Amino acid sequence: MIKLSDYIFEYLESRGIKQAFMLPGGGAMHLDDSLGKSGMEYVCFLHEQGAAIAAEAYGQHTNMPGLLLVTSGPGATNTITGVTAGWIDSTPMFVISGQSKRSDLVGDKGVRQIGSQEVQIVPMITPITKYAVQILNPAEIKYHLDRAFYEATNGRKGPVWLDIPLDVQASMIEPDELEGFQAETVSGNGQADVPFDMENIVKKIKSAKKPLILAGNGIISAGCEEAFYQLADYLGVPVQTTWKSIDLMWEDHALYAGHPGTLGDRGANFIIQECDLLLSLGARLDSSITAFNEENFAPQAEKIVVDIDEAELNKFIMKIDIPVCCDIGIFLKTLNERLAKEQWSDEHRAELEKWRAHCKALRAEYPVILPEYAQKEQYVDGYYFTGILSDMLEENEIIVPESAGVTTEATIQAFRSKKGQHMKHAAGLGSMGFALPYSIGACLAHGRRRTVAIDGDGAFQLNIQELETLHRLQLPVKFFIWNNQGYASIRGMQRNNFKGHYVASDAGSGLTIPHILKVAQAYGLSTFRIENNKEIAETVAQVLKTDGPVICEVMVDPDEVVMPKVQSKMGENGQMIPGKLEDMWPFIGEK
Amino acid sequence: MIKLSDYIFEYLESRGIKQAFMLPGGGAMHLDDSLGKSGMEYVCFLHEQGAAIAAEAYGQHTNMPGLLLVTSGPGATNTITGVTAGWIDSTPMFVISGQSKRSDLVGDKGVRQIGSQEVQIVPMITPITKYAVQILNPAEIKYHLDRAFYEATNGRKGPVWLDIPLDVQASMIEPDELEGFQAETVSGNGQADVPFDMENIVKKIKSAKKPLILAGNGIISAGCEEAFYQLADYLGVPVQTTWKSIDLMWEDHALYAGHPGTLGDRGANFIIQECDLLLSLGARLDSSITAFNEENFAPQAEKIVVDIDEAELNKFIMKIDIPVCCDIGIFLKTLNERLAKEQWSDEHRAELEKWRAHCKALRAEYPVILPEYAQKEQYVDGYYFTGILSDMLEENEIIVPESAGVTTEATIQAFRSKKGQHMKHAAGLGSMGFALPYSIGACLAHGRRRTVAIDGDGAFQLNIQELETLHRLQLPVKFFIWNNQGYASIRGMQRNNFKGHYVASDAGSGLTIPHILKVAQAYGLSTFRIENNKEIAETVAQVLKTDGPVICEVMVDPDEVVMPKVQSKMGENGQMIPGKLEDMWPFIGEK
Repeated sequence: MIKLSDYIFEYLESRGIKQAFMLPGGGAMHLDDSLGKSGMEYVCFLHEQGAAIAAEAYGQHTNMPGLLLVTSGPGATNTITGVTAGWIDSTPMFVISGQSKRSDLVGDKGVRQIGSQEVQIVPMITPITKYAVQILNPAEIKYHLDRAFYEATNGRKGPVWLDIPLDVQASMIEPDELEGFQAETVSGNGQADVPFDMENIVKKIKSAKKPLILAGNGIISAGCEEAFYQLADYLGVPVQTTWKSIDLMWEDHALYAGHPGTLGDRGANFIIQECDLLLSLGARLDSSITAFNEENFAPQAEKIVVDIDEAELNKFIMKIDIPVCCDIGIFLKTLNERLAKEQWSDEHRAELEKWRAHCKALRAEYPVILPEYAQKEQYVDGYYFTGILSDMLEENEIIVPESAGVTTEATIQAFRSKKGQHMKHAAGLGSMGFALPYSIGACLAHGRRRTVAIDGDGAFQLNIQELETLHRLQLPVKFFIWNNQGYASIRGMQRNNFKGHYVASDAGSGLTIPHILKVAQAYGLSTFRIENNKEIAETVAQVLKTDGPVICEVMVDPDEVVMPKVQSKMGENGQMIPGKLEDMWPFIGEK
Repeated sequence: MIKLSDYIFEYLESRGIKQAFMLPGGGAMHLDDSLGKSGMEYVCFLHEQGAAIAAEAYGQHTNMPGLLLVTSGPGATNTITGVTAGWIDSTPMFVISGQSKRSDLVGDKGVRQIGSQEVQIVPMITPITKYAVQILNPAEIKYHLDRAFYEATNGRKGPVWLDIPLDVQASMIEPDELEGFQAETVSGNGQADVPFDMENIVKKIKSAKKPLILAGNGIISAGCEEAFYQLADYLGVPVQTTWKSIDLMWEDHALYAGHPGTLGDRGANFIIQECDLLLSLGARLDSSITAFNEENFAPQAEKIVVDIDEAELNKFIMKIDIPVCCDIGIFLKTLNERLAKEQWSDEHRAELEKWRAHCKALRAEYPVILPEYAQKEQYVDGYYFTGILSDMLEENEIIVPESAGVTTEATIQAFRSKKGQHMKHAAGLGSMGFALPYSIGACLAHGRRRTVAIDGDGAFQLNIQELETLHRLQLPVKFFIWNNQGYASIRGMQRNNFKGHYVASDAGSGLTIPHILKVAQAYGLSTFRIENNKEIAETVAQVLKTDGPVICEVMVDPDEVVMPKVQSKMGENGQMIPGKLEDMWPFIGEK
């Protein structure tokens, strides 16, 4: 016999989970006690939102479920933003919440609460989880653990949630008598038995003169990076990446062809608009890539789109020539085997080489970081800063951009990545306040290696309480916080669309931000500030070599804008008229 | 013609809403712009959770909907904890979220996201709102505004939520052509046409020798305090209050008979266990009142329970002799009118006087604040502190206890309230992190009058970013933060139930808390500290007379426990065995 709460952590350890993110509470008392007795390391955050975001980061960086343990009621509701991020970004997460004992549950009584701190969380989080269940029968615990673990880590990944009443946590169970869950091979869930027309795909690849691969996060999620590199190298086809897959490629890779999209680089957008075959591998081609304009997206290209989620393939307005619903790992393995039998003509090789050179030339012609940015005398230029920071970072470094705002956009747009770097963030949800707890989760996921986080002063505020967690753990996280005096992206929007009528976006319109370095110092952290371009290199070097957590404030121009970008225009009735990928602002005239 | 987003704020202003709590965002850009152009005051918080909690406080303190405006995606999900609190505590709240434009919505496509920062919030918050709808047809805006306002403020109150896509926000509408919502008189929704047996009620009141009124938050929510005081004064029946209705009565009121419950006072618990008639008015008799032990709750009493929510009347295990489903205002008016026709014998009056004297004597015999607490030399005694603080506060003062933890429990248990004081908190959800944003909302609800907040060091961390909002507004909020070195209530639980195996509850088990005063100073706030009992009176006086926001740290004993309390015991299998109201720990033997 074993106590159910002990069984849970034994089970999760046996499945390879080593780390938990948590905040304790009465509703999870047995779970907390069992976690403390287990061999797992746990980190206590000061807000469940911080713990949830760290678990999401850990899940993204390890491709194993990020484990989150919280108490009932507010403990559970406080995690929802972090879990939503994991849902959208297909991150494996395993959430366990405590709950009031079974006799105190609302059930079908129709009241708002029975138990102390009771909230019926399962209906609330069902839309953002792959599997969510309140466990009422202790004998079913193995089934639900098996099933939840399977769902989190198979098919299109995502968060799962077990809600466990106090008396269930404390139940004694006989492990040998528990029934488990057997996964069946389900059609349409990315299994090998979904047919696709490989011969047609090979034919299109062979006949394309300007093929392009768009490599998405699905490749990372499926853990098939090697098969992908094998394919790309073999074909010699240029590769573009998305915000979620930015670290699949690096700047000096022979095939790298930039990021396309609303906030891509001009060269990359010209390339994708010019290509004649687009092979999208595990990318969902969302509005940040198509710039809200599917009709004009890669208009010259036949499109082969591989996705594990059939719904993603059915959602498009634009025509997809060959939609393939398949686990990307299985697809790549099959394709690589098939291509090994192909012959390629010298003419074809030469044509591809010309296309690659054209792509490289386009990107060289339109750099994101312009030479004049270096000349700025007052303030730090954010783009210039990003270039220097990129160059000073090493291969295999961990980089955490914030998940929303000007800082995020400019950083991802301008960053020159190196081989093996891990640069991830919660791109889909696009929330402020992620970088701090996310950097803690990412740093722990990589054995406490140096982690560089880039944040905006407005976004930094939302989980600022976790400065204490950072200080307590003494993690080597180096924070660069762009001080642009509030919400620069909101001000930009209000300038462009509302004639500069600022609302809650700067000090004059009701938004203030505290003195970041004073706050960081109050938490006992080392601090630096960069006032202008001339100070960047030296101070960044100091920050990087300072031990432990460091907060460095970067005084950027409050009016610095993100550019180039594809801009939607606001029509008369306030409807948004999308722009075109090949026509980024500031406009350069006809290409 | 008028822009829909402008119409919304004109509408809400015309309904008497003067204040909005918000954080701006791209998904709410038209709404933000319209709010800025309206005559409403808006306060920008640094996390949507803070804005939501402030709106909840404003709703509780004004009994008008607390208005909350947030953007799509994370803006919406970040509010869920605050809205859940409003749901459980029947607080009128009006939430408006921005959303991706209609053509970018997930709809029935089965994917996880289409629009930028899109989250389909309505299904997630439907369980915690009375009315939640995504507005797809601009012509229906008046209907939804009418309906939402009606639901928030009628029947059992609660939060409502309108989710409005960008292009709907920007639509031009013709106000005169809009159709509205007409509320029907719905049976069971607290309307006057639900019959109840008044004669039987009057008979029971007349024949009771030891009657007791339990006055709940329903009285405040219905705005019928005067009718309640009229009833109580007329009958001369002792009155007890709950955590949610604590400010309905005050310590020196002739009828006041304390708070019953798990964390009540001993005298109050003896009284409720002894009474022969319990008239519960708008209290839901939850487990904090019954101590998880309905079978043993007021066992001598016939029970008349008046509640607007029929489900609350049907939930009980214990027998309710006369359940009355009715708006409490209508019930009180009817009862008062009926009682005016009654004759009361001198004998009855004398018997009641004896009962009242007995109640007063019981409470005097068992004070919460014991004389020996004054003698503590090291540390501040939390109970002794609460006594002094209570005595130094004035009538009509605003008092905000935190919503969870030792500080909350001891404060509410020991506080000696005065007439007209407003002492409210989010009791039902019982979340940490409420006191700071809640105090901002409460202070604004009362025209920026002095507000005294009492918090614990652990709970204070969760929305610490709002120190900036407090500083920006320069509100006269005086914070007393009990420093008990982490989560004292969790440590207590781990001592009692897990042999002192601490997990994430003190520095030795992975929880640390920052230096509170250094952090407060970094935000530019005035600070004080009270080290021991002798310093209390003088420092409290200084805090109260210092202008603007003040943070005062109170160094309490980390091992100070909440007492007396009704303790559940943990049985062999971890099941909780409830205690008895009349038998509070520390036990005093048979009464």
